[in-house]
Amino acid sequence: MFAFTVDATSAAARTGRLALPHGTVVTPCFMPVGTQGTVRTLSPADLKAAGAQLVLANTYHLHVRPGEQVVERLGGLHRFMGWDRPLLTDSGGFQVFSLEGFRRVHEDGVEFQSHVDGSRRYLTPERATEIQWVLGADIAMAFDHVVPGGADAATARDALERTLKWLERCARRHRELADGRTAGRADGGAIADRQSDCPPVRQTLWPILQGGAHLELRTEGLRRILELGDWTGVALGGLAVGEPKPVMYEILAALEPRLPRALPRYLMGVGFPEDLVAAVERGVDLFDCVAPTRNGRNGSAFTPDGPVNIRNAEHREDPRPLDETCDCETCTTFSRGYLRHLFVAEELLGLRLLSLHNVRYLIRLADEMQAAVRSGWFTRWAAEWRRRYLRSNTR
Amino acid sequence: MFAFTVDATSAAARTGRLALPHGTVVTPCFMPVGTQGTVRTLSPADLKAAGAQLVLANTYHLHVRPGEQVVERLGGLHRFMGWDRPLLTDSGGFQVFSLEGFRRVHEDGVEFQSHVDGSRRYLTPERATEIQWVLGADIAMAFDHVVPGGADAATARDALERTLKWLERCARRHRELADGRTAGRADGGAIADRQSDCPPVRQTLWPILQGGAHLELRTEGLRRILELGDWTGVALGGLAVGEPKPVMYEILAALEPRLPRALPRYLMGVGFPEDLVAAVERGVDLFDCVAPTRNGRNGSAFTPDGPVNIRNAEHREDPRPLDETCDCETCTTFSRGYLRHLFVAEELLGLRLLSLHNVRYLIRLADEMQAAVRSGWFTRWAAEWRRRYLRSNTR
Repeated sequence: MFAFTVDATSAAARTGRLALPHGTVVTPCFMPVGTQGTVRTLSPADLKAAGAQLVLANTYHLHVRPGEQVVERLGGLHRFMGWDRPLLTDSGGFQVFSLEGFRRVHEDGVEFQSHVDGSRRYLTPERATEIQWVLGADIAMAFDHVVPGGADAATARDALERTLKWLERCARRHRELADGRTAGRADGGAIADRQSDCPPVRQTLWPILQGGAHLELRTEGLRRILELGDWTGVALGGLAVGEPKPVMYEILAALEPRLPRALPRYLMGVGFPEDLVAAVERGVDLFDCVAPTRNGRNGSAFTPDGPVNIRNAEHREDPRPLDETCDCETCTTFSRGYLRHLFVAEELLGLRLLSLHNVRYLIRLADEMQAAVRSGWFTRWAAEWRRRYLRSNTR
Repeated sequence: MFAFTVDATSAAARTGRLALPHGTVVTPCFMPVGTQGTVRTLSPADLKAAGAQLVLANTYHLHVRPGEQVVERLGGLHRFMGWDRPLLTDSGGFQVFSLEGFRRVHEDGVEFQSHVDGSRRYLTPERATEIQWVLGADIAMAFDHVVPGGADAATARDALERTLKWLERCARRHRELADGRTAGRADGGAIADRQSDCPPVRQTLWPILQGGAHLELRTEGLRRILELGDWTGVALGGLAVGEPKPVMYEILAALEPRLPRALPRYLMGVGFPEDLVAAVERGVDLFDCVAPTRNGRNGSAFTPDGPVNIRNAEHREDPRPLDETCDCETCTTFSRGYLRHLFVAEELLGLRLLSLHNVRYLIRLADEMQAAVRSGWFTRWAAEWRRRYLRSNTR
């Protein structure tokens, strides 16, 4: 379980298989984001039809509402969401550091305010690990301290050191939970006993590399993470958070030879098509982003010829599908003219149909990249892809 | 084509089959409402999964946005919506008389203001018929003058007389269109020529009986409608528009023996479960209403034990489905606790899942009524159904 097998490579790009308790994930893989335990506007059946293998849910959001105990009493996150394929939960670190409102960082953890009811909350590495354990996703993420893309070296160093210390605490707590040692919870409570007839939750914990836009911190951080344990995957956090894109690409390229070949590499929060291609070119395997659903709700659709804004008047009587190459329900059923009508008339179905297409688009893009890697000509494929995608910036 | 066959009766209740160009509809039948060419939050695939046989779209709404010419250029209403089963369009009469804003009634037609851009529009019986012809639904409705449920006899008489005059004009225009005589359009324009390789649009026109809550007007109106032509169906309009429910039931019961047995009877705008049962008991065959989708978006779900408000705190950790007897995606996939979470967290998926269930609920109710009629014990079934549905008013 949690084994990753690289099946083919092409330059730095890879395709592989990650065995998880709820199924095997083929990489490169894009994860749709189900912030509140639902990928906005899409049902589990839609996600399966779109080919989603792995879905991300947000620990912070589910902790503040409905609360992980409610999710547990309703059978755990998989049953709660009606999703029987693999799940990954982030640790809440990114939300705590990026959402608006009060927050205070202590060495022990972070004090913050719930965006739902304004109540004071306290999240520690142990608590974040326990909450994720209760949620029961296949992959849990370590609690990290995220800094903005423009953070100076001292700030990024401080957050990196804290993230590394917290990683040890997350890993310790996760081992205890996996071993059935549920007593001694940091806040004095006890994890609810699982029914004896339930299979044990099988979950792995992945570390998150921080270090801002500072390559030397990233390199050092990676070395120290790898010294800390025998991980089943590694995540690159704190990228795509405001730094210029070339900086992200440079960091990815520089880290690639230092990343263990045998571990899946997860670039957090990245989901625009051009970034997926650039990152796979630099050896990344997994991605998540709200872009396909958020952009979809704004009327922006990914196509092989670049983004299309469906609200534009030019689509008014256009009988063509959104993306002639696409096999999704949206593209095989509806015209651009109808989709535009739905957006102009503020019909909820429009939000869903564009979200569905955009998710399917990124999953098909990942599938294409798998094939391009297997063909051995990934670099050539990527150049061709970019030539078409970036040809026109105004559609 | 357009033949209606009564297959079984039980007291006044009937079950039958209505042959339409896009398929045969089994009655009693509930039509979901696709106001703007989409049943709010639901895709055509959802509607098929819910068992929808016939969908209603609003002529007024599609006329003001996107305009019937846009729909025609995109292949007609069926292709526009991605719905290949039967469609019915209302005439716009109800909207013109019930939407907010300016309106002036002339003998020739109605001047009104678009709710979209405030522009002045003019709808006559001929225009309403032409617009519906262009949209191309299986069933078009005559343009009528609707009065509120509490209208006095003089007001209702005035609207009835106008509706009858307009019915003759609608029928004349519809015959001309069906015969291919498209010149001489009332506003001086010409209906766009259809491609010669397109099959001819096959559409029938149904009259609408008005007369307010005044039984003598209803009886007279019905007699005069039946004298006017050889209809394929008849609609009862201007009911469920503010009059007390017993008044509607009384009118239905009094009209029933006067309605031709061989015509399908369509009670417009009725869609609460108890009203469907009461109306089928009084010989009605077809229904439409926004209730299942509008209530669904408000968090109210139909169940055999009466309506459930999913926002209520009691559902917070409830692992049971919304309706244990239901086979829809919502009920077979999700717990009440999860559905409540979606509403509390303002997730769009919740609106869709409750809309889907409510539509499925009414379609299953119609299916149950078909079976009850065939069993010959409809009255007993209806009493049993009411005993359970009305037992508890607060859920």
